Amino acid sequence: MASSASSSGATTSTASTPEPQSSANGNGADAALIIDASDRNADLYYASGFLAGDPFTFVSIDGRRYLILSNLEYTRGTKESNVDEVVSYSELESEVAKSGTDPVRMGDVVMHFLRTRGVSRIEVPGNFPVATADVMRESGFEIVPRNGGAFFPERECKNADEITQVEHAQACTEAAMLNAIETIRRSDVVDGALVLEGEPLTSERLKSMIAIELLRENYIARDIIVAPGDQGCDPHNRGSGPLHAGESIIIDIFPQGDHRYWGDMTRTVCKGPASAELQAIYDSVKRAQEMALSAIRPGVTGAEVHQFVEQVFEEDGFETSIKDGVWSGFFHGTGHGLGLDIHEAPSLSRRGGELREGMIVTVEPGLYYPGIGGVRIEDLVVVTADGQRNLNRAPKELCV
Amino acid sequence: MASSASSSGATTSTASTPEPQSSANGNGADAALIIDASDRNADLYYASGFLAGDPFTFVSIDGRRYLILSNLEYTRGTKESNVDEVVSYSELESEVAKSGTDPVRMGDVVMHFLRTRGVSRIEVPGNFPVATADVMRESGFEIVPRNGGAFFPERECKNADEITQVEHAQACTEAAMLNAIETIRRSDVVDGALVLEGEPLTSERLKSMIAIELLRENYIARDIIVAPGDQGCDPHNRGSGPLHAGESIIIDIFPQGDHRYWGDMTRTVCKGPASAELQAIYDSVKRAQEMALSAIRPGVTGAEVHQFVEQVFEEDGFETSIKDGVWSGFFHGTGHGLGLDIHEAPSLSRRGGELREGMIVTVEPGLYYPGIGGVRIEDLVVVTADGQRNLNRAPKELCV
Repeated sequence: MASSASSSGATTSTASTPEPQSSANGNGADAALIIDASDRNADLYYASGFLAGDPFTFVSIDGRRYLILSNLEYTRGTKESNVDEVVSYSELESEVAKSGTDPVRMGDVVMHFLRTRGVSRIEVPGNFPVATADVMRESGFEIVPRNGGAFFPERECKNADEITQVEHAQACTEAAMLNAIETIRRSDVVDGALVLEGEPLTSERLKSMIAIELLRENYIARDIIVAPGDQGCDPHNRGSGPLHAGESIIIDIFPQGDHRYWGDMTRTVCKGPASAELQAIYDSVKRAQEMALSAIRPGVTGAEVHQFVEQVFEEDGFETSIKDGVWSGFFHGTGHGLGLDIHEAPSLSRRGGELREGMIVTVEPGLYYPGIGGVRIEDLVVVTADGQRNLNRAPKELCV
Repeated sequence: MASSASSSGATTSTASTPEPQSSANGNGADAALIIDASDRNADLYYASGFLAGDPFTFVSIDGRRYLILSNLEYTRGTKESNVDEVVSYSELESEVAKSGTDPVRMGDVVMHFLRTRGVSRIEVPGNFPVATADVMRESGFEIVPRNGGAFFPERECKNADEITQVEHAQACTEAAMLNAIETIRRSDVVDGALVLEGEPLTSERLKSMIAIELLRENYIARDIIVAPGDQGCDPHNRGSGPLHAGESIIIDIFPQGDHRYWGDMTRTVCKGPASAELQAIYDSVKRAQEMALSAIRPGVTGAEVHQFVEQVFEEDGFETSIKDGVWSGFFHGTGHGLGLDIHEAPSLSRRGGELREGMIVTVEPGLYYPGIGGVRIEDLVVVTADGQRNLNRAPKELCV
């Protein structure tokens, strides 16, 4: 893939900064600034509507939004971004070079742009690169990082278009999930292992089937989890090898669409009868999830929802502990916000804040006991005026 | 997908920092620090061998390397990372909480860890988050960002294992490219448009075929380009709609493997006879690429290689200019380094530095003239002791 001619090499050395015209200047800043690649900075994509894999600059001054783009991105930027003005990086670079600066760095170009517009105080996101901030401060700029929370807090509550994108993502995710479960159901059991059309049904094979189905719908699912038995007890283990009858199989699918929004869903199944211990875990996780789902409404905090889940597990006698460096029980959050990032605010966890209408969150309690298995059940819900709307319809049944 | 219970919500608000034990302390720092998600920070993955989508902390002190991981990642970290010691985030958090800090933030935990080990001066990468740096500086830490260049300069020269990964990636990329070109070759032409097995052969259809073929080999190609005619004149336009006979079709494929290394390759083809103007552009790009390929060896600078390309285009009378906001001619770099990042140092462009043995770079000149079409030809090469080894064998022929 072609890269910019103005690149000085290490594109990885520049990073990140966003701003909303509303609140940035309300905080007393003259302007706000993001420098990053928008394919890894959702705030920047949210601010500009422009998707690019190399770092570029977004500036907002008194509500007017600019992109500074290299020759390589300039034409596409004028067509695809939603900012008020696209400025040519190479033209600014030439202006700076005339003043004798050599070499001209991205920071010089940005500072030149800001100075010519009378800007001296700039709000940046917390993850703005410290090296750029230091250079700008030494040059007299006041750099004000916005600490804690998102740079665009309005990203937490989704508008109708955003909800539509996530609904589509989740519909495709659920379709792929149902097909994956159906594949397990119709597989044969040979010497305890699952076999499909004469070939072993492995974690890898099922993940590949899921990924290809989603790709046909223009969704990319890089890190699908199909984790059997004790593998599933490590919640981020992707899973590998043959699947067996009688063991828990955690299937967690989270694809991202061309529109950049995510889906996210988990089911746990067992081919054939499950042990009483595994069934007991499953029933408790299902009850905990139902409790969490029924608690979600505007005004409730993520911490409260998480406590309800912990309470169910306590009532059911499922303890959480660490032994020889391995955690068992329930040791992750109950859920997380989802949108342009797979994990974003709000959080349903120990320190989760108040839920508001339009937020989209996962609800995914789990229990993990090596020797018995792992169980996680995850739905995606939209917080509504009086509760939540569940974007999933798929059944929750352990044995298939 | 499950997220950490210790998350305070906005995972996007923390960002990035790496360090190599060799040079960090050589610069006088006691320690080095990265805080980021390794799936978007190649330096962090390089440092730790641990892949995760949520921010975590890497510390190196006097050559000993640590990860600080949440409960959710702790067990996997002990198995998958290559650091000397994995430290429990929640245990450190409890220690900090005992001192009365409330709430305990990630920065507090990291500072506590560093203080207990007598560290007060820390080297960080240029893209370390300014908000975290500010807090640590206010608490008495000396934060030294490494300006310019990569945090791990040794990443520029690949070792044998890394070269093997890229070779595999490029072999899969070339196989998919040859199939894509063969698909165009065996398509029919109906009223000027390409038709395959009775259905229109669109950019989208061909991209989907390529992506699925690569996915079967465990490579993800998110942003394949199949850009016909004038669409190809914008080098980062992904392309859309029907393909036609007689027009340039730029095919640019750059997938990433499970091992996190990339492939990258471009060919330009035309179904049926091409116009004399298009053929002339093609011939000049091919000649420019041959010139660049023959110039690559240790000691040559990326800037020199880029100049050879510009010289060929000048000799052949192909000018570069901007008109009504649209660039034409040659307005991107000749190539870029590739490894764990798709674009990394070194750069074959105006300011590209000296090439060294073991570097892997793309060589991809292009010419773009709206009304005639776009042409880019890209190979991937490894810099060897006396030249370069081309990882591509696919022919370079315009008409198919």
